[in-house]
Amino acid sequence: MEKRLENFGFKNQKEQNPTIRDILETIKENLNKNDQRPVIHLGHGDPSSYPSFRTTPLAQEAVISALRSSQFNGYAPAAGIPAARRAIADYISHDLPYKLSQEDVYLTAGANHGIEILLTVLARPGANVLFPRPGYPLYEARAAFSNLEVRHFDLLPEKGWEVDLDHVESLVDENTIAIVIINPGNPCGNVFTFEHMHKIAETAKRLGVVVIADEVYGHLVFGCNEFMPMGIFGSIVPVLTLGTISKRWLVPGWRLGWIAANDPNGILDKSGIAKCIEKYLNITADSATLIQGAVPEILEKSTKDFFSETVTLLREAGDKCYAKISEIPSLTCPHKPEGAMSTMVKINLPLLEGIDDDMDFSLKLANEESVLVLPGSVVGLKNWLRLSFAVELTTLEDGLERIKAFCLRRAKK
Amino acid sequence: MEKRLENFGFKNQKEQNPTIRDILETIKENLNKNDQRPVIHLGHGDPSSYPSFRTTPLAQEAVISALRSSQFNGYAPAAGIPAARRAIADYISHDLPYKLSQEDVYLTAGANHGIEILLTVLARPGANVLFPRPGYPLYEARAAFSNLEVRHFDLLPEKGWEVDLDHVESLVDENTIAIVIINPGNPCGNVFTFEHMHKIAETAKRLGVVVIADEVYGHLVFGCNEFMPMGIFGSIVPVLTLGTISKRWLVPGWRLGWIAANDPNGILDKSGIAKCIEKYLNITADSATLIQGAVPEILEKSTKDFFSETVTLLREAGDKCYAKISEIPSLTCPHKPEGAMSTMVKINLPLLEGIDDDMDFSLKLANEESVLVLPGSVVGLKNWLRLSFAVELTTLEDGLERIKAFCLRRAKK
Ligand SMILES: Cc1ncc(COP(=O)(O)O)c(C=O)c1O
Ligand SMILES: Cc1ncc(COP(=O)(O)O)c(C=O)c1O
Repeated sequence: MEKRLENFGFKNQKEQNPTIRDILETIKENLNKNDQRPVIHLGHGDPSSYPSFRTTPLAQEAVISALRSSQFNGYAPAAGIPAARRAIADYISHDLPYKLSQEDVYLTAGANHGIEILLTVLARPGANVLFPRPGYPLYEARAAFSNLEVRHFDLLPEKGWEVDLDHVESLVDENTIAIVIINPGNPCGNVFTFEHMHKIAETAKRLGVVVIADEVYGHLVFGCNEFMPMGIFGSIVPVLTLGTISKRWLVPGWRLGWIAANDPNGILDKSGIAKCIEKYLNITADSATLIQGAVPEILEKSTKDFFSETVTLLREAGDKCYAKISEIPSLTCPHKPEGAMSTMVKINLPLLEGIDDDMDFSLKLANEESVLVLPGSVVGLKNWLRLSFAVELTTLEDGLERIKAFCLRRAKK
Repeated sequence: MEKRLENFGFKNQKEQNPTIRDILETIKENLNKNDQRPVIHLGHGDPSSYPSFRTTPLAQEAVISALRSSQFNGYAPAAGIPAARRAIADYISHDLPYKLSQEDVYLTAGANHGIEILLTVLARPGANVLFPRPGYPLYEARAAFSNLEVRHFDLLPEKGWEVDLDHVESLVDENTIAIVIINPGNPCGNVFTFEHMHKIAETAKRLGVVVIADEVYGHLVFGCNEFMPMGIFGSIVPVLTLGTISKRWLVPGWRLGWIAANDPNGILDKSGIAKCIEKYLNITADSATLIQGAVPEILEKSTKDFFSETVTLLREAGDKCYAKISEIPSLTCPHKPEGAMSTMVKINLPLLEGIDDDMDFSLKLANEESVLVLPGSVVGLKNWLRLSFAVELTTLEDGLERIKAFCLRRAKK
């Protein structure tokens, strides 16, 4: 073999940034094949395989009519078809004090692709970005890939996972471009108040950084705080929102998301960032035109009933999860979930026998109880766990009982 | 506005590499709104909007049953669902002297995304790649974006657009990683012989470079040469094939393609390239699971009749195009199209009055005749044109007549 074909590898990405998928694969390998019980997956945020979390027939029919029309078999414009961009602009504007136009919306092949696009566009030599800890690891992986320096600010469990704004201030320097906010929160299941979001916006403005608002779990809230889009503060600071039909419509496999520029003052235009996004869209993947064609119908016609059924189910699941964890002395859930699909649980290691850390916990739990959970270190918090509660309720109960049995069995005397 | 938010832009990509979409937009702006005739688009390769180029109902029904099954609403594994990978491996293996396994196939959101992935993975500091001239400009745009040096080898019109292999030899150095071959050819509409492909493989082997075989137009051939996948020579040299359902099934808007590693000697594995592709798939866009779910049915059940109807239509269109161009003294089509959806036509500028170059030709043609064609310089050949003949036959005839009228009107006395 030629020398020049040897030793291919991604320097930055390889060992340091295992993805959620990588880690879950490792944990799965530890499952005990002799355990007759079904494997319970509380490790990832895709409930779409459970009967209770089926999408609305209306969304399905919208795709079928797009298909039967034969109007959406061709290439779409790089930013998406106008009708879909307009429908998304209207959908978002519903909750904003001003109106987005269709030019403010760019379609992506899911919000993951939106993250890829934004971090690619923002990566210039020497730049850094601020990410939440705990967070969503694709941000770290894409930043590493683009040689974008990452600085983490903490979310504060004792304050309902609010952003530690003092920490944010201390991290910013003249090369900081953007701050990422995930609300409703993955992995913490928290929902920010209006006041807190206002403070984030004011801080970002003062520091001169763009806000990337990951609102993938938008509207999936079931506690005291309403969902409010960060774009509300777009006239204080430019906000690039990431959205998707994956979560609210329970169809992550359809791969359709968006980037929305909430920026009435035109700062993103002036800086060239908007143009760069448009340019980059020309040379990166597109969402399927077929799904784009269904978007207006999906966004405009889905019923309140469908949405509230999902939210009711998530509330019940979140409550169950919180209640059961509080029965387990060696685990602590500092904040009852009020949005999204997961929660963070602290492992009180000194109370457990023979568990080294969160990875060890997850491996042994898989082996002994056939339950999969995500080690918190993957999302930035060592010796925590991320539990996804968006599963069938009976399955969730079974899974939580097994976790309890595991912890009690291993409780130090 | 903060300094650090100023002057965003892509250094390498901005002016040098306008995409086909960019150029066609500029040309469209030159259309004469007072011209009552319909605009005829011979500039891009998407026939899916024409009634004659409708996909088979079987493909549509396959998506509908995938949808109704509710089995394909969730996230897929990064490389694609096993059933789709297996179906594609079988589909390709049909024409190979050995069998691909499902692990050799990676799903992508269209072949464009396959190009993005391969050039991203192959880009390491100092590396260069060999691209055909004329070619498909997304290669240049993606290479520029990844700081991958590009070296162009010529395709020879007088030899039916075969690769100038001497030229290839002269370009290679110790940093050359790969050579790109597009067959059936876009933009030239040529199809390589077995002997020529064999020579390409031997040359690549001797030079120690990987072959990227863009077979997006695979099976769409209608001249003397059969379509043969480059993977036939996978035991001579590793071949990374790019495929798609976009062209043969006339559904570019469904965004499903693949990368197939044809490499019985395992060189791509040993080099780390295969691993890098897998790693990168974890952090880049995915094709819709919904479409992946329909792939087995689409690939296994589509009828010969559907395929041969498309090919018959393309043959007729290609013949018409070639015949009409030969009636126009100021244009030359050096090679009758025998595959894919377009052909290259040389402008004999000295025979034309008041036409500066290919861009000028395209702008004035749009303005005076409401016909859109692509200036050859966009695909690497100045003062040529790329004509896409995959349009409704009556439309094609009308368009060619208008081109003829334009050229005759501007003929030098
Ligand atoms: C915080 C966050 N951002 C983005 C995504 C990706 O969403 P999509 O399915 O639209 O790619 C997810 C998916 O779980 C997520 O949790
Ligand atoms: C040579 C070539 N490669 C790749 C592509 C992209 O194909 P896809 O629609 O699968 O992205 C095209 C589309 O026109 C093409 O002409």
